[in-house]
Amino acid sequence: MESMSLQIGMLVFPHLTQLDLTGPYEVLARIPDATVHIVAKTLDPVPVEVGPLRLVPSTTFRDAPPIDLLFAPGGGGQIAATEDDETLDWIRTTGEKARWVTSACTGALLLGAAGLLDGYRAATHWAFMDLLPLVGAIPTNKRVVVDRNRLTSGGVTAGIDIAFVITCELAGRPAAEMIQLQMEYDPEPPFRAGHPNVASPALVARARERIARRYAQREEQLRRFTSRT
Amino acid sequence: MESMSLQIGMLVFPHLTQLDLTGPYEVLARIPDATVHIVAKTLDPVPVEVGPLRLVPSTTFRDAPPIDLLFAPGGGGQIAATEDDETLDWIRTTGEKARWVTSACTGALLLGAAGLLDGYRAATHWAFMDLLPLVGAIPTNKRVVVDRNRLTSGGVTAGIDIAFVITCELAGRPAAEMIQLQMEYDPEPPFRAGHPNVASPALVARARERIARRYAQREEQLRRFTSRT
Repeated sequence: MESMSLQIGMLVFPHLTQLDLTGPYEVLARIPDATVHIVAKTLDPVPVEVGPLRLVPSTTFRDAPPIDLLFAPGGGGQIAATEDDETLDWIRTTGEKARWVTSACTGALLLGAAGLLDGYRAATHWAFMDLLPLVGAIPTNKRVVVDRNRLTSGGVTAGIDIAFVITCELAGRPAAEMIQLQMEYDPEPPFRAGHPNVASPALVARARERIARRYAQREEQLRRFTSRT
Repeated sequence: MESMSLQIGMLVFPHLTQLDLTGPYEVLARIPDATVHIVAKTLDPVPVEVGPLRLVPSTTFRDAPPIDLLFAPGGGGQIAATEDDETLDWIRTTGEKARWVTSACTGALLLGAAGLLDGYRAATHWAFMDLLPLVGAIPTNKRVVVDRNRLTSGGVTAGIDIAFVITCELAGRPAAEMIQLQMEYDPEPPFRAGHPNVASPALVARARERIARRYAQREEQLRRFTSRT
């Protein structure tokens, strides 16, 4: 057994999807002998994408300790975060040194824009999976995708599942199962519409319509990044 | 159809289990024409139970508008919150007027201590289910329990499931399914240990040992409340 004082750096940026972060946080913060840092550009409270909640970072890009595990959430604000050089530089330099590089939802596009998914199999929110090749990643239609030290997951709630996979890797299965029992993670969705594989085609079509503009924005943005490198 | 400008009041208090709140929040904040308020004693950032995260309330007990749906999270801090007269008074007066009174995890014990579950079937975190009779509630071993306008759920992640049940009730199933698809809520826990029904007896015994002191605290506290009324 190697020494276990693992430093986990969870990125936050304005208008993130807060559950992309708070789901995995609840799991990772319970890992014995791990320390979670909520890392942002400044210590100012960060507004989330939907509703009035704001999250307070615990440290900044400048002050964060060396990070063993990097985690990137997604959400509408991921587009602006990708344009922000300071944010992308921190992701790149932190990710290059980290032992594990992980994400939920469109956090994968941030990792990708920072050059961290080139040649890796990866997942992201189902609606944006097609964009992964623009950052050199290989789209993989699974809820959690592990390729060497890159662990990426599907949209929003998939962050909880990837957090248990991460915990198993970092702390072993007994520790992960204890956290699962504490968190009563034995899900029972009252209906099934959580993925295009199980939702009605009409619902999927309406959902795609709603995000068409955001899809186009992300596509345009990532094409710019690709042509830049 | 009645008018839909629903005011949702989600309580926060120091050392709550943040996912008890942030899981349901992600669902409820997406309900069309609903407004979520993060309600606390003051506007100061609220520390969570595990790790460095702090949540910023959006309003206070004094300034919150009339609430149609009250939601109470749980966590270690629920014990201190129950001792706090100002918090319990707000829960009681708000819950008595609200159309729906809801909780995740040991939030049910807060509702119960405020007198809001007397004679109702209810759920709470599996480890504390036995304490519900101390507040006059009828323990019901289900992940989500609906009894008239009281909707209570099991521990931590059960809050996501109850939020979809609530959304279905408030906004209809098509709206709830759209949110489920957006949030890619098609869970795939990598292993199954999330409830005593599926975890190994040895793991359950270790988990019960770990929370024995907290169980005793809660039992002592609720016995005091029962004898007071």
